[in-house]
Amino acid sequence: MISVGILNVSGYIGAETARLLRRHPFVKVTSVTGRSAAGKPLAETYPHLAALELGVSDELGDVDVVISALPHAASATALLPLIDKGVPVVDHSADFRLKSASEFEAWYKTAHPRPQLLQESIYGLTELHRDEIPGSKLVAAPGCFPTGAVLALAPAWREGLIGADIIVDSKTGASGAGRTADVRYAFSELDANVVPYGLGGHRHLPEFNQELSRLCESPAPRITFVPHLVPMTRGILTTCYAPLAPGRESTTAEQAQELYREAYAGEPFVRVGAAPPETKHTLGSNLCLIYVTVDARTARLVVVSALDNLVKGGAGQGIQDMNLMLGLPETAGLDDVALYP
Amino acid sequence: MISVGILNVSGYIGAETARLLRRHPFVKVTSVTGRSAAGKPLAETYPHLAALELGVSDELGDVDVVISALPHAASATALLPLIDKGVPVVDHSADFRLKSASEFEAWYKTAHPRPQLLQESIYGLTELHRDEIPGSKLVAAPGCFPTGAVLALAPAWREGLIGADIIVDSKTGASGAGRTADVRYAFSELDANVVPYGLGGHRHLPEFNQELSRLCESPAPRITFVPHLVPMTRGILTTCYAPLAPGRESTTAEQAQELYREAYAGEPFVRVGAAPPETKHTLGSNLCLIYVTVDARTARLVVVSALDNLVKGGAGQGIQDMNLMLGLPETAGLDDVALYP
Amino acid sequence: MISVGILNVSGYIGAETARLLRRHPFVKVTSVTGRSAAGKPLAETYPHLAALELGVSDELGDVDVVISALPHAASATALLPLIDKGVPVVDHSADFRLKSASEFEAWYKTAHPRPQLLQESIYGLTELHRDEIPGSKLVAAPGCFPTGAVLALAPAWREGLIGADIIVDSKTGASGAGRTADVRYAFSELDANVVPYGLGGHRHLPEFNQELSRLCESPAPRITFVPHLVPMTRGILTTCYAPLAPGRESTTAEQAQELYREAYAGEPFVRVGAAPPETKHTLGSNLCLIYVTVDARTARLVVVSALDNLVKGGAGQGIQDMNLMLGLPETAGLDDVALYP
Amino acid sequence: MISVGILNVSGYIGAETARLLRRHPFVKVTSVTGRSAAGKPLAETYPHLAALELGVSDELGDVDVVISALPHAASATALLPLIDKGVPVVDHSADFRLKSASEFEAWYKTAHPRPQLLQESIYGLTELHRDEIPGSKLVAAPGCFPTGAVLALAPAWREGLIGADIIVDSKTGASGAGRTADVRYAFSELDANVVPYGLGGHRHLPEFNQELSRLCESPAPRITFVPHLVPMTRGILTTCYAPLAPGRESTTAEQAQELYREAYAGEPFVRVGAAPPETKHTLGSNLCLIYVTVDARTARLVVVSALDNLVKGGAGQGIQDMNLMLGLPETAGLDDVALYP
Repeated sequence: MISVGILNVSGYIGAETARLLRRHPFVKVTSVTGRSAAGKPLAETYPHLAALELGVSDELGDVDVVISALPHAASATALLPLIDKGVPVVDHSADFRLKSASEFEAWYKTAHPRPQLLQESIYGLTELHRDEIPGSKLVAAPGCFPTGAVLALAPAWREGLIGADIIVDSKTGASGAGRTADVRYAFSELDANVVPYGLGGHRHLPEFNQELSRLCESPAPRITFVPHLVPMTRGILTTCYAPLAPGRESTTAEQAQELYREAYAGEPFVRVGAAPPETKHTLGSNLCLIYVTVDARTARLVVVSALDNLVKGGAGQGIQDMNLMLGLPETAGLDDVALYP
Repeated sequence: MISVGILNVSGYIGAETARLLRRHPFVKVTSVTGRSAAGKPLAETYPHLAALELGVSDELGDVDVVISALPHAASATALLPLIDKGVPVVDHSADFRLKSASEFEAWYKTAHPRPQLLQESIYGLTELHRDEIPGSKLVAAPGCFPTGAVLALAPAWREGLIGADIIVDSKTGASGAGRTADVRYAFSELDANVVPYGLGGHRHLPEFNQELSRLCESPAPRITFVPHLVPMTRGILTTCYAPLAPGRESTTAEQAQELYREAYAGEPFVRVGAAPPETKHTLGSNLCLIYVTVDARTARLVVVSALDNLVKGGAGQGIQDMNLMLGLPETAGLDDVALYP
Repeated sequence: MISVGILNVSGYIGAETARLLRRHPFVKVTSVTGRSAAGKPLAETYPHLAALELGVSDELGDVDVVISALPHAASATALLPLIDKGVPVVDHSADFRLKSASEFEAWYKTAHPRPQLLQESIYGLTELHRDEIPGSKLVAAPGCFPTGAVLALAPAWREGLIGADIIVDSKTGASGAGRTADVRYAFSELDANVVPYGLGGHRHLPEFNQELSRLCESPAPRITFVPHLVPMTRGILTTCYAPLAPGRESTTAEQAQELYREAYAGEPFVRVGAAPPETKHTLGSNLCLIYVTVDARTARLVVVSALDNLVKGGAGQGIQDMNLMLGLPETAGLDDVALYP
Repeated sequence: MISVGILNVSGYIGAETARLLRRHPFVKVTSVTGRSAAGKPLAETYPHLAALELGVSDELGDVDVVISALPHAASATALLPLIDKGVPVVDHSADFRLKSASEFEAWYKTAHPRPQLLQESIYGLTELHRDEIPGSKLVAAPGCFPTGAVLALAPAWREGLIGADIIVDSKTGASGAGRTADVRYAFSELDANVVPYGLGGHRHLPEFNQELSRLCESPAPRITFVPHLVPMTRGILTTCYAPLAPGRESTTAEQAQELYREAYAGEPFVRVGAAPPETKHTLGSNLCLIYVTVDARTARLVVVSALDNLVKGGAGQGIQDMNLMLGLPETAGLDDVALYP
């Protein structure tokens, strides 16, 4: 068995990584770290993980591969020595996602500790970077919002089906904020509530732009992105709106659906459906469900994607990346269907 | 006291009308009807309304004014005799909202029973039609989505601040579907879920177009509207996106906010805020909260509105209309602040 | 108008007191304090209270009556100078509820700063202490759980209908924990969850014992009380189980119901119903709904009560107390029916 | 592979059975029936099960073993021909749970179609009937409430640690009512609500009595059972209260915990914990979590159990039974840990 270490298992992404890897046929979690929980059994923080019989450590032991669920800045700091030693790394923080150090600094208000790594790291949206991942030692797992939005937009954008004026409106469960004691995420505040945020610019926006521009350099996408907290724990539903490109205005819903089905044919974790998806159909699974249609009244493409932010938008995607890095079957450990209802 | 009759008190809008009118200083509910509940005390269907000591009837008694919470088609049928007798009527169905009989037929798949009334009825979005309501005997209370969306867009649209390419993305609680036994609205199906619907065209869309066109005839608005069910009972949050019009692209967020504050200065039930609203801040109140900003990266206006679909998006707005029809103070019976948390 | 001051308006009980008093016909909130929010408009912490146009202060201004929503220990410290000056006080903390200083110290792990006041203060469960409140300057509003449990048990216990072996099982919304940043009350942790707590002994237990013993000195009640967090914001449902007393085993459900109806006849805020209550039927109202029945198979009385922990189990009850202290009508400002659904 | 047929896959227990069996190493679902969904792909009713690529039929095909998720009466009717043919059957309805035909008729208001089978069928609470299941062709999976309550009470009751006066108070998610269009289970009615029901006697009560009496014939248990709907989809938390038996009143919490740990030592799906369980720690898993303590003030045992009503309280337990019937490892297909948060 290949040994895996998880940095910051006490956060939700770290814990979900541990849960998913429990049934992975080729790897085994052997070392996990976590700030406040260090020195205690993992079961004390997460009773549902008691069967893993793991203790939380201060320092990572020797492992074959590392998955970091640390927050940005802290993650790079912890990972640099491991990267220097040549240990393969999947990073869930934003530290290695953006290719531009200045963009990183502008959005994260801190200088990057090793900007040259930004060119080496691979953006781990597997469906778009599958060929680059196997040879890489450093994969940056995408943010939860970019996963759903870029998968929703990529086929149309790549083909020039849509123009650059793109609206991305996301509805997310509270677990995206992590395991936090912030009063804004208290039950009494979020229950029975919809809370828009990030209207001044959300940190995931540069990922949208980077990935779409990579698929089609010109024109530059002009994306407005607004996320909204809704009263649920897991799940992101993203609704994308874009004008059909000049000359493509008569595209029908059926044609758009055919384009999407072809684009994702054979993808194990993207399913293009005949009806709009619901987030609950992805609960606990690594699937991203996509529905595309055309608003013929306005010649506009509307694409909806749904995923579990802690699986395809988080831990699951990181494992998908790890599988490819290690030469394992891409779907290993990721075949759960959703829990419903 | 002026006597009020409520048609279909057994639905949520009817029950909420009864609840709100209990503290109205000038009117009193004296007769209520309801299909299945006829012949029983209202408290049997709605224990929270026991203090009203009302019995549900099959037929409406003699009243000075009628508020109908019947579904479309059924409402017109029940109201026509009352209208013919000259009884003032507020209708919560869609039967008298649209000015065009052919639009009505296209969206509601039924011929209108009295098309000439469509020209006489007033669209009861008080903030836009305040002057027309006092002389009217027939007011059509707006749909819950148009209330939030039109209030969010009206100031910018009227001033030509935005172009016609408008996206309206709404997140709504389940009570908008009414008191229904449909499995799609069962707790186990909607809990922990976001469900987009109406992607082929929602019946509230023609109300958006009609009301915006009335404010500014040209260009015709090109609106794409997608509503989403989120796991809560009350509340609608609507996020609107539109390009700043040619020549207005350098409008700042502050300028847009100033425009909105002026547009709604003195409005008792619209509050333009300095931060994005949350639906829970409107729970049980007749307020529509609005926040406007500019996405300077894309020269786009973003407007968010929040309201309680059963109050400002329903029963409360109907009472606001009734107050004006009867020459009463517009705010009578509607001064509740929201229940929070 | 009588002027009211609220200590700690930034907590949920304080904010709810402000909301309810807004429509009180005889009093007006003129001064409010709050730790972190001092110096800011109240609307910044609680946008739903913007209409009150209050600023949060560090120190209370001169007022005719004070309602304290401070936590225990802090409340007594803040109130002692006011009590010494003879200002009438309603205290929502536990500082003046228990008659026994040693019980207070045993449960709250702190010495009482002025034990002699424990004999002077009145336990503000209005339905049981109505006669003592008008002459008092210091009323201790009961805990949220004792309100529902003692009202549920009092009629049967006072009449000797039940034996001393009493089980009290409560289900509570998260707002009972207050506005807190504790991760245990985070949305992601409480959503879709039932969490029992306090199994080693909950601080509200001595209130149960004190109040029942006051109604009937012998035998001493033997109560086991277990509260459970359920995924909602407001509301407590309490289910009480007790054996029918020797000689009363053949009591029927109808007889028990008759006893309860008589016991609470004329009570403005207790309603004995013909069917089990639901917490949502009390949302935002000052009602305590009670249902009593007999499990004839086991000769056991079962009583269920429902209330809104922030109103009848909190702010509303404090206002009921204040009304009596000041010689005002007991129901002033408290006539809201519940918000449903 | 052994072929399995599921009767009524369109209900939640049927669908959950299909989900769980997808990863079972020794069996494969080959035929599923469902009333309204017959003739359609299963994915139309349950998109999360698309990966199973099953079509719903009117009639069951030839299979090696049948799991019925039909409601009572309908289940017996459908199963009798299969039983007569000697096909091994696990039944999730109540039709074969009770040993007494008169008890069945009293609670289910219908004559039993084949009373003699009641003596042959095995009550499938594996932890109590493990030895009887392997030789049986007809296993009746227990109700969701009895599973949690009997597992919580069995160790103490069997040892005579507690007296007969037992209170069982359960809090359940809405999925226990099945996939139903009943307005009482509509989102808007159950959200933010606690609803007690069955106070006149719940159909699961005779299962409690039968199973406890089987463990210890005398005295007869005197159980009062009240279930409560709480606003979540899955999960049951059951709190049991019983007096320590005469002579055992000084039993400590530690002694009780030791007794329980021993009683369930080696059980794969019962875990006796050091802290009270939460339902969310069982979501999607086949675990029943138990915590026992003593209320020393009243010499009373308090036991709390938590489980997922669709897994250990439903489909998972049925598979556990099936595994034993077929001579397979008891845990096959049931090793999921819970999904958290």
